[in-house]
Amino acid sequence: MMLLHLLNKIAPLMELTLSVAHFNHKIRRESDYEEEFVKKECEILGIKFYSNSGDVIGYSNKNKIGIEEAARKLRYDFLFNTLNDISYNKIATAHQGGDLLETVIYRITRGSGIYGIGGLTPVNEKLTRPMLIVTLKDVLKYVTINNVKYVNDPSNLSVEYARNRIRHNVISELYKINSNVEENVLRLVETVWEYRNTVDIEFKKRVKFKENTYIFKLYEDIFDAEVLRKIFLINGTYPPNMEETKKILRMKSSGERFITPLKIVKKKDELFVRVEKKEE
Amino acid sequence: MMLLHLLNKIAPLMELTLSVAHFNHKIRRESDYEEEFVKKECEILGIKFYSNSGDVIGYSNKNKIGIEEAARKLRYDFLFNTLNDISYNKIATAHQGGDLLETVIYRITRGSGIYGIGGLTPVNEKLTRPMLIVTLKDVLKYVTINNVKYVNDPSNLSVEYARNRIRHNVISELYKINSNVEENVLRLVETVWEYRNTVDIEFKKRVKFKENTYIFKLYEDIFDAEVLRKIFLINGTYPPNMEETKKILRMKSSGERFITPLKIVKKKDELFVRVEKKEE
Repeated sequence: MMLLHLLNKIAPLMELTLSVAHFNHKIRRESDYEEEFVKKECEILGIKFYSNSGDVIGYSNKNKIGIEEAARKLRYDFLFNTLNDISYNKIATAHQGGDLLETVIYRITRGSGIYGIGGLTPVNEKLTRPMLIVTLKDVLKYVTINNVKYVNDPSNLSVEYARNRIRHNVISELYKINSNVEENVLRLVETVWEYRNTVDIEFKKRVKFKENTYIFKLYEDIFDAEVLRKIFLINGTYPPNMEETKKILRMKSSGERFITPLKIVKKKDELFVRVEKKEE
Repeated sequence: MMLLHLLNKIAPLMELTLSVAHFNHKIRRESDYEEEFVKKECEILGIKFYSNSGDVIGYSNKNKIGIEEAARKLRYDFLFNTLNDISYNKIATAHQGGDLLETVIYRITRGSGIYGIGGLTPVNEKLTRPMLIVTLKDVLKYVTINNVKYVNDPSNLSVEYARNRIRHNVISELYKINSNVEENVLRLVETVWEYRNTVDIEFKKRVKFKENTYIFKLYEDIFDAEVLRKIFLINGTYPPNMEETKKILRMKSSGERFITPLKIVKKKDELFVRVEKKEE
């Protein structure tokens, strides 16, 4: 609601046209009431309102993925479809510093390299998260001072075990240790974003793509591994861990590795990473 | 005790001569008993035993530092003094994966950049931590299988509020989310160690030291900031945060900044960082 009110305020100044897209996960009792609440608020503000819902639990069972992952997939599919349908340019989500902190702890716990800690990014192609550097404390201040109506969802999509443990048990403890933990993590993540930028720059410098093959010149520094991992990510595959990545980089000349869907061949100081087509 | 038994086993193979140095913090009731315990174990193994104790709480009050920090200072002073006295080459400490995890969470919470997450390092000049990549689970396995006697210290120097919160409340939660959290964080930290190595290499490439002045050639990449921060660290000063660091890097040519004890002058694409002598 803060994001909505904020964007609505600055829309005339920045010549933005706003619409709201609301995905109703239908997981909690309050879901329908919340949709109604947002819809009414949009009516008051004179903003177009689009909504949809989906069978999150069914989708989760069918695709053997967690409920939160299923919810995310259906939600973002809906957001991007709506963006297309109404020919808008950008999706803005309301993720804030608390979400970022949660994601950092989550990723560290589940296993991540430096690149992965970056978690949520402020801008990602058509997606923008203008509130990512705003702390939860400041969100609460803003809605109070500006008298913004909102719905408090104490469960906050409380369907995923891990995320909830972090949100309720871990982060509260970290706050007791340092009440600026959100700002501190934000500052860390900002340096990681910069690190990611550097990886992207090095990627462009080192990698050419021709005829389904990445031709990747090795520099024998820390970014070789990051660039190789990025090739995996681009091709929708979870990259091998650092140890494995290094083994690939250190193959002998004319060495070969095959990690679906990538065939990797080394020639002198270059890797040739070929994307094998799926057999349909 | 695992470290002692392990090193004692491999000492003949690696032609090591071992001694034990034990610092008695005298903070807990069990402190004297523990010193006695280690001393006896050394007698059984035929290893020389050195010990000392210090007034940790007095030192903490006098220097206005936390008790854990005071304990660490006195302990390491004793270890390095003993190293000198007996003319040995290395100090090995028994920090393991659990300590590393704790340090990572602690640093993230208190505020740290990528460099700082590295926390404990496996080798640092005369200090070596051979067990840093061993998980706490494996330590417990080792002492059980090899029948190594040990003293269980449930409080584990339980004098510091923050560390204890992390140890007892946070890490136990993270384990419930992912039982491999220690290994996962270790893998993250390994990439950070590599990042640190890269910073050190870039430091040597970019920085010359002459007549109390670091002459620092700027490359306008992510490592400029890391190298500048390292100059602060070398001079025993906590470096400015990333935002401040960037402001310094982006000064106009002939711009000046003074952050005790460093005077920083920019000339074209170079920073001149002069260490001002303290007035005694």
